[in-house]
Amino acid sequence: MGYKILDSKSILEYVLQYPDTKNFLDITKPLEAAELSDGNLNAVFRVFEKDNLAKSILLKQGLPYLRVAGESWPLSPERAGFEARALAHEYTFAPGLVPRPYWFDETMNINAMEDLRDHQVMRKPMMAGVRFENLGVTIGRFLAATLYASSDFGMEAKAKKQLAKRFANGELCEITEDLILMEPFEPILVGGKENRNRFNPLIGDALADLQNDTDVKRNVAHLKHKFMTCGQALLHGDLHTGSIMASAPDANGQADIRVIDPEFAFFGPIGFDIGLFIANLFLNAAAQHAHAKDDKARSHYRAYLYKQARDSWTVFETEFREKLTSPNSISWTHPEFQADFMVSVLRDTAGYAGCEMIRRTVGFAHVADLDGITDEKVRAEAERMALNVGRRLIKEHPQVSSYDDIEKIVKGVIAI
Amino acid sequence: MGYKILDSKSILEYVLQYPDTKNFLDITKPLEAAELSDGNLNAVFRVFEKDNLAKSILLKQGLPYLRVAGESWPLSPERAGFEARALAHEYTFAPGLVPRPYWFDETMNINAMEDLRDHQVMRKPMMAGVRFENLGVTIGRFLAATLYASSDFGMEAKAKKQLAKRFANGELCEITEDLILMEPFEPILVGGKENRNRFNPLIGDALADLQNDTDVKRNVAHLKHKFMTCGQALLHGDLHTGSIMASAPDANGQADIRVIDPEFAFFGPIGFDIGLFIANLFLNAAAQHAHAKDDKARSHYRAYLYKQARDSWTVFETEFREKLTSPNSISWTHPEFQADFMVSVLRDTAGYAGCEMIRRTVGFAHVADLDGITDEKVRAEAERMALNVGRRLIKEHPQVSSYDDIEKIVKGVIAI
Repeated sequence: MGYKILDSKSILEYVLQYPDTKNFLDITKPLEAAELSDGNLNAVFRVFEKDNLAKSILLKQGLPYLRVAGESWPLSPERAGFEARALAHEYTFAPGLVPRPYWFDETMNINAMEDLRDHQVMRKPMMAGVRFENLGVTIGRFLAATLYASSDFGMEAKAKKQLAKRFANGELCEITEDLILMEPFEPILVGGKENRNRFNPLIGDALADLQNDTDVKRNVAHLKHKFMTCGQALLHGDLHTGSIMASAPDANGQADIRVIDPEFAFFGPIGFDIGLFIANLFLNAAAQHAHAKDDKARSHYRAYLYKQARDSWTVFETEFREKLTSPNSISWTHPEFQADFMVSVLRDTAGYAGCEMIRRTVGFAHVADLDGITDEKVRAEAERMALNVGRRLIKEHPQVSSYDDIEKIVKGVIAI
Repeated sequence: MGYKILDSKSILEYVLQYPDTKNFLDITKPLEAAELSDGNLNAVFRVFEKDNLAKSILLKQGLPYLRVAGESWPLSPERAGFEARALAHEYTFAPGLVPRPYWFDETMNINAMEDLRDHQVMRKPMMAGVRFENLGVTIGRFLAATLYASSDFGMEAKAKKQLAKRFANGELCEITEDLILMEPFEPILVGGKENRNRFNPLIGDALADLQNDTDVKRNVAHLKHKFMTCGQALLHGDLHTGSIMASAPDANGQADIRVIDPEFAFFGPIGFDIGLFIANLFLNAAAQHAHAKDDKARSHYRAYLYKQARDSWTVFETEFREKLTSPNSISWTHPEFQADFMVSVLRDTAGYAGCEMIRRTVGFAHVADLDGITDEKVRAEAERMALNVGRRLIKEHPQVSSYDDIEKIVKGVIAI
């Protein structure tokens, strides 16, 4: 059976004939399938026992194009292989923080995994103001575990080079290089490439101003070059709040939190993952602020968001440094080197966070937090805040020396 | 025919049966073979027509161990494949500056190439004070051409990632990571690794002092981490004066200069290649100085060496920047980014030059320039100068802002 695109009918036939299914579902019982597909890239199916809805598996199939764009945007279905290899790494080093992988079918480009039926994608409850008090801590822990384990501090040098070979994820990296690290900053491209920015006409002046700032261009070029050349560790590569799922929080705001969708995984600069994550919290804060400046509950929610962002950095740094007390080479044991290294990651974090905030506002792929604001003027207000924070993070990132510097920039524009 | 280690008899049988030989030698004529093998790593043979010595080819075979160490130092013979792929790249972008490749036999791990009969390895004539007035210019040109063409400025992003996959050269990178970027700076290693330093007992105090300098350790850790993570371009990876061959210079000191032996090739920081090259000129200067401080000819030779080092940087920078006037993405067109980038390469150059000077003095693999000094006290004097220059280059490399800064450090210790 060669590769073919499945639908909610043929996925059932596929599952029934696949040898590993019996380890996860009772194939003697009647099974049903439903298509979920709500991300941009892939087809996603749930297959479950008709008489026991709690017994289900999730299947993701890589399509030969970007799902939301269709055949006009071809993309190799082999991205499923990058996801499989990245998920295997994450599951090894952060087992409770990702879905458990069941199998990867290289021919069909299908990843089968634990179905997180009781979880929802984090972006939606965040837009509704739901608090997950352990969000930042969990993401910080996830990042410290997965990034350290794939870095030259945690991996033997030759083994790391062999692993990196399996993550030459050129097609998906290109999406980041173009959409996050170039197009939002350049009104006109070269070499026949087309700029795909989309933006609210009410902020056209702010965008023009941004795109005329040569200091921004200089810093973005450095961040892009570092993204393309600096293979510090195996990144998730797309760690926004749509790549995180959570169960309903308990009375103390604690939830089961999982990171999903690592198909953008590649060896890159560590700060990129953390930067994307905190940027998505800041984008939500901008939206909440514009909605209702003087609403006490919203103000508390911004304080909550800033705490989660800070937690993610603090826990990441603490746990990464804890691991650095016994690295695999004497070269990495020197305290001054370790301190310098953590600051360099923090600076990258600030810079990439800035790029993400801007591209989610005026680039090709927006966030629902902002786009969901129906009043154009209110939306423009939130968008201007996002652009301002992003711009300051980009320009000031080489001088950042502690997390306080980042928080000061954000709070200076989007007050609690 | 599977892989087997050849000698000067069986290499003839190999050449006679290899289908491509007839394109380079007349196989109807009697052929002879001679083993040359004077490098550390591989077996090298010359096969020539008995009645026409000018018709010859060179064959390099990768052995399953380091040639000079024997079977106690295993090393995959597949390094020949890295050399083949690197030489192909170099020959494409700097065709007159490397030997012409004839074929690569993957089974036998043999590279056949142009035999540079009239050339000798650069280190020897340099020790005798022979001047090659176009040495620096040629190396600068070689580096600008090969490095730019494999960088993200000169290559399409996805193609570069595919090419980089073919240079996961872990075994040979490990040699550099250990011998250049760790062992000389650490008297005691961890994890069962053994320190292989060798040094003149007369400089034991200077070495102890160096190894107690925490600022050196900090900077070396950064340089090592950058070497391991920062894939800016396809480096030669071993560009010392033993990896350069030259014909006898003409009356104007002009020679035909070729870069050989790229088996250490991998994607790394651009400054590493230039740093190794200039360090080897400085090592020669230190040796010449200790030999005969007041000898006018030696003094002139040091001025010549400093000029070649400067030429290599200047020509590299000029030609690289010339290419940067039309890079493959608008991201790289911003003048401030380009200026920053060239300074960062210069800083890396200084740092890696410092590491090379130190490891060639007290590490495992020395240079004949220093080791050839028979009087131990005179040798110690030269070695102390090499350590001093190396240490200053390492410690001051993050502040270097123009080539003058490097020259000032060197001349301050090894006067003309």
